[in-house]
Amino acid sequence: MAIPTEMQRVVLAARPQGEPKLSDFRVETVPMPKPGEGEFLARTIWLSLDPYMRGRMDESKSYAAAVEIDAPMEGGTVCEVIESKHPDFKVGDFVNDRFGWQSHAVSKGEGVRILDPSLAPLSTAVGVLGMPGITAYVGLNTHGKPQKGETLVVGAATGAVGSLVGQLAKAQGLRVVGVAGGKDKCDYAVNELGFDACLDHRAATDASALRKELAAACPDGVDIYFENVGGKTFEAVLPLINVHGRIPLCGMIALYNQGALGAAAADGPNMFPKVWRTLLVNRINVRGFIITDHYDQFPQFVKDVSGLIRDDKVVYKESITEGLENAPQAFIDLLRGGNFGKQLVAVSPDPTR
Amino acid sequence: MAIPTEMQRVVLAARPQGEPKLSDFRVETVPMPKPGEGEFLARTIWLSLDPYMRGRMDESKSYAAAVEIDAPMEGGTVCEVIESKHPDFKVGDFVNDRFGWQSHAVSKGEGVRILDPSLAPLSTAVGVLGMPGITAYVGLNTHGKPQKGETLVVGAATGAVGSLVGQLAKAQGLRVVGVAGGKDKCDYAVNELGFDACLDHRAATDASALRKELAAACPDGVDIYFENVGGKTFEAVLPLINVHGRIPLCGMIALYNQGALGAAAADGPNMFPKVWRTLLVNRINVRGFIITDHYDQFPQFVKDVSGLIRDDKVVYKESITEGLENAPQAFIDLLRGGNFGKQLVAVSPDPTR
Repeated sequence: MAIPTEMQRVVLAARPQGEPKLSDFRVETVPMPKPGEGEFLARTIWLSLDPYMRGRMDESKSYAAAVEIDAPMEGGTVCEVIESKHPDFKVGDFVNDRFGWQSHAVSKGEGVRILDPSLAPLSTAVGVLGMPGITAYVGLNTHGKPQKGETLVVGAATGAVGSLVGQLAKAQGLRVVGVAGGKDKCDYAVNELGFDACLDHRAATDASALRKELAAACPDGVDIYFENVGGKTFEAVLPLINVHGRIPLCGMIALYNQGALGAAAADGPNMFPKVWRTLLVNRINVRGFIITDHYDQFPQFVKDVSGLIRDDKVVYKESITEGLENAPQAFIDLLRGGNFGKQLVAVSPDPTR
Repeated sequence: MAIPTEMQRVVLAARPQGEPKLSDFRVETVPMPKPGEGEFLARTIWLSLDPYMRGRMDESKSYAAAVEIDAPMEGGTVCEVIESKHPDFKVGDFVNDRFGWQSHAVSKGEGVRILDPSLAPLSTAVGVLGMPGITAYVGLNTHGKPQKGETLVVGAATGAVGSLVGQLAKAQGLRVVGVAGGKDKCDYAVNELGFDACLDHRAATDASALRKELAAACPDGVDIYFENVGGKTFEAVLPLINVHGRIPLCGMIALYNQGALGAAAADGPNMFPKVWRTLLVNRINVRGFIITDHYDQFPQFVKDVSGLIRDDKVVYKESITEGLENAPQAFIDLLRGGNFGKQLVAVSPDPTR
């Protein structure tokens, strides 16, 4: 297949105020880059969309540098090598990398993982067997320290992280209660993912109403609250957390759009003293973590979870948007909870499907 | 010495709104109780005053039941057995117990520790070798996980907990920066306790001003923030905490008087999103703990710290109020930071002094 002379990419056009708008992005067509010695060129098959990307759009201090204005948006990808001057990568190799919102990219191979397409569908490399998956795995096991018979609550229950957290916890004998937006998602969490219960935060008028439902669904209280949402769900669950509870803290979808270090977040009552006091009184362990600190667990994670997938103990759902040019709208929808399952952009055909 | 026919006690007269007032307490004279079979009667020598007692005055959920109205205030004490029908306790034994704000009490001996007056002055059993001391020891070592060369910040730096936290950290090769109220306390922390620096939070106009001073005193950032204060100090230190920082969380003096679960605490901007985001971004571990969960470490703690006291690596300061009837005012002063060193009430003579 001849290599095209041009490629597409989506760049950050403006830093969003609150929720991103389509005008904060720009789709560009640029000349196809050429790989130099020790480099390869790849075409993107799958682009992963993840809530953390919202943080990269802000200038505020985060665990990774902000995306520069006019630079391509960042993101995890599954690609196929189409031209190579790199000894370790050959044409036809499928790789998991971070080429961002681009149809093609040149790489020196650093941090690039060659995929075995016989192990699982390629798209799982950015989902259940990729960054979101290992986030669930490490957050639950290393930081959540689950014990059989305990109760776990997880928000965004049908999302890429939450759905695996819940299934891994179920496989270890925990009671699992999800929180999700909408009846369809809640039904899916219970019927397909095997959660014990799943509550619709949209149907609950406020945190207090959601708390009542959670209290009924968690008769023995909550031992682990896997925090990947923030906002109303956290406020609802906090008073229900048992003594010696654990809060692995990996994200706050509900806060990303608020520019959490900015003025908007200062609205509303000051929750901090209440939160801090509850952490003390109930001896709670809050553990912020960034998954890249734990990539030493990647081989064990892939082994464990691909085994669970083969045994049908872990299922996963994908939400696929066709075409790189539609990535901005898909991302905006993702932040609003409009996706259902792991959000992917099909950038070019997957030859293994 | 004949046993008196009456005893004194201080009871909770009313639940305080915010800062306690003298009228929230009542000093009473009541008949002397008689020990039954398997009980002993003791006279209180030392009563410990500690900030956590403020929490017991509220009805709100805490890690221990509230003090009932008209019941004696709770508290750790050092006592002498003056009459015994208990096989394990004999007249003349010195004991560490929790007889509360009372001149005398009858006990069945549960949770009572017999003291060796040759080891250290009796008063240390409620101070540097008692509950505040083990709070410092466990919080620093078990939850703070100090590493040589790291930087620790501790508030209430000359208090019973803070002063030991800092000295134990210095003994392990950390840089130690205290925060305290007033120049005298700061000078004491540096000159007597050996802290590398100590900042006067009263001299700093706001959290931002205090932060600038802290940043200058902590050129390599902050690895451990031992949280026993809350309020302005926490707000100042939070952005300075390094990646993988630890926050052992054992108390919040600045918040106790606000009725932290009540309305007053809702004043001011909502710090919560900022706090939560910082915990995530910098992978910080916040560990609420209650020291009674860790009393299995008591023997090792007493061994370690009494050794450090003998070697002059740990010094301690006591602030002594004479007379049980003056305990309420001393406690009010303590919450305002008016004490300087471990706050004790001399209830009756210490024969070992």
